[in-house]
Amino acid sequence: MKRTFSFELLHTDPSGARRGRVNTPRGVIETPAFMPVGTAATVKTVDPEEVKASGAQILLANTYHLFLRPGHESVARLGGLHTFMAWEKPILTDSGGYQVFSLSSLRKITEEGVAFRSHLDGSARFLSPEIAVRVQERLDSDILMQLDECPPYPAQRDYLARSMELSLRWAARSKAARSDAEDGRALFGIMQGGMERDLRQISAQGLIEIGFDGYALGGLSVGEPKPLMAEVLSYAPELLPRQQPRYLMGVGKPEDLVMAVERGVDMFDCVLPTRNARNGQLFTRRGAFNVKTARFREDPGPADPECRCPACRRFSLAYLHHLFRAREILGHRLMTLHNLQYYQDLMAEMRQAVATDRFAEFKRNFHARRAEGMAEPCP
Amino acid sequence: MKRTFSFELLHTDPSGARRGRVNTPRGVIETPAFMPVGTAATVKTVDPEEVKASGAQILLANTYHLFLRPGHESVARLGGLHTFMAWEKPILTDSGGYQVFSLSSLRKITEEGVAFRSHLDGSARFLSPEIAVRVQERLDSDILMQLDECPPYPAQRDYLARSMELSLRWAARSKAARSDAEDGRALFGIMQGGMERDLRQISAQGLIEIGFDGYALGGLSVGEPKPLMAEVLSYAPELLPRQQPRYLMGVGKPEDLVMAVERGVDMFDCVLPTRNARNGQLFTRRGAFNVKTARFREDPGPADPECRCPACRRFSLAYLHHLFRAREILGHRLMTLHNLQYYQDLMAEMRQAVATDRFAEFKRNFHARRAEGMAEPCP
Repeated sequence: MKRTFSFELLHTDPSGARRGRVNTPRGVIETPAFMPVGTAATVKTVDPEEVKASGAQILLANTYHLFLRPGHESVARLGGLHTFMAWEKPILTDSGGYQVFSLSSLRKITEEGVAFRSHLDGSARFLSPEIAVRVQERLDSDILMQLDECPPYPAQRDYLARSMELSLRWAARSKAARSDAEDGRALFGIMQGGMERDLRQISAQGLIEIGFDGYALGGLSVGEPKPLMAEVLSYAPELLPRQQPRYLMGVGKPEDLVMAVERGVDMFDCVLPTRNARNGQLFTRRGAFNVKTARFREDPGPADPECRCPACRRFSLAYLHHLFRAREILGHRLMTLHNLQYYQDLMAEMRQAVATDRFAEFKRNFHARRAEGMAEPCP
Repeated sequence: MKRTFSFELLHTDPSGARRGRVNTPRGVIETPAFMPVGTAATVKTVDPEEVKASGAQILLANTYHLFLRPGHESVARLGGLHTFMAWEKPILTDSGGYQVFSLSSLRKITEEGVAFRSHLDGSARFLSPEIAVRVQERLDSDILMQLDECPPYPAQRDYLARSMELSLRWAARSKAARSDAEDGRALFGIMQGGMERDLRQISAQGLIEIGFDGYALGGLSVGEPKPLMAEVLSYAPELLPRQQPRYLMGVGKPEDLVMAVERGVDMFDCVLPTRNARNGQLFTRRGAFNVKTARFREDPGPADPECRCPACRRFSLAYLHHLFRAREILGHRLMTLHNLQYYQDLMAEMRQAVATDRFAEFKRNFHARRAEGMAEPCP
């Protein structure tokens, strides 16, 4: 394990999909990789040991939430996020900006940063690029994200342009704010520009000039129609350096991951597997379905016979169905374990397919099995 | 492992505390034993493997809840309760009577049984001694409880007498209703009689004449003052056969368990360790305290340094405090694991103390450590 951050591009499949390896002082991340979301220093309903057992190599934690509660200084005094939440592998933290825009109230953006009121207690708070870096360092994050503005969809072109330029200036300030460039932490820049190709180009160029350890595609999965996201993904990843990791933020559904990997994306995060688990949705090789539907009432089989998660190995669909009907927390947990396993298995299959130049074949099978599963009620 | 149910009284301490062993076809229960409550075929928030790891040898499941949802016939078709919930060790089921009285509406008791409306959907339901036995057999319970009436506290003496006599007649019908006396299942009778010594005596006598595999003390922990429960426990266990297990239903706090073990009780169940965990209450060797209080905000130590549960081994009080403040389910689960471990450890310590004739010493230490812990804020 290297003491510094680095990325090795191991192989590129004929389709364009990449197989890589992110080295961090806290461990290796084989890419393409999916990062489960541990918002408040916990992946909701499950134990970090269970997250690890699913194959996850890195978690995402939300700076906004931890900044407000318990507070980054408190986390620092308790030994940092890894000690606090008992997760020794790498952690990526977002900058807090996204939640400031989606959760807090009375936001006011200036050149300096963003003032807002906490959604918890209404207290006045302020984040700047420098503060966001400082907070992430105090949390002891391994991969830090720059503070950016993530514009909603739809947005006017001139607003998108001004916002992207602001994010670029914040990118430069974020890099300058890093207290110790030799501490092994990585800092990622975030490309913005909405659905406008030339703005994406300017954003990428600007970020590359500043120079980051990795580059994220921001401003997607913000409510735009699926074909628009596909269009942006058809050109945007290539605007970023080949020899550095590309991270698509907040995406997504299994089919989105497959599409984006084919476009050359290396890293992902999304609340979907965990949040939807708590609503009863199971992701399986034969598509997604809801465990609460009556047809599973007496189904003695597992959610997915090919899955090795604790839910599938030891419990029936009928039992999961019962737990949801009875509003039992064990149901949330078992479903979360299953969905996390499904996402990790999907990434592992994609890594295997890319390594052997069979991504196109993988993709055909992926869609064929889902189509099958949807036709004759699964599983 | 014997194919039939039996009880061995291994040793009696000078204090009166008993060390015993319940043999069932599904495993051995070393007594005194505490049974975690798995109301709806799940010990709330935790996995059966975790319950087992805490040292629990038997679970209690609530017939009332399973009768209504998913239904005993459904559970039977799915292979019985053990398969359904992935718990292969013994299960004791109550008769459903207690919840009929505490949860359902429009109850009507007749000689035949009790008509009521489901608290879930208002549907009209009926339980008789025969139906309660049948339901428990279909659930594939290992220890069945007779249907009884559990009078509230306070209650008039003549009501207590009539109710106790009805429970006795239901006891006889319960025994007659067992479909296969050779199936290895046990049936326990339940002593009633409120706080009236002579009624308790008549109840015990009547049950012994019918003949059961074990005997429960019912009608305690129903709101009576603590000295009254202590008074009943000073004479009631001795009214029951020495060579059979004695089970105190629905009790209780750690100090209640210690008192009752000294009075010769062998088995217990209570929702306290699990329910209170979900409210933030930790049971420890130095007393009970609430993890939500501000003094734990930055406490890097474990809830109980002597405890080997996952919460104490891997997480700090500060983290548990944070999980509760953030309303994260992992907090409920870690606290539940801890409290279950505390209860199982307490029982194991008592078994050890009884086996070596040191129960009086154990009891002194038990109370001394708690007094200490309360004085200088614990832990």
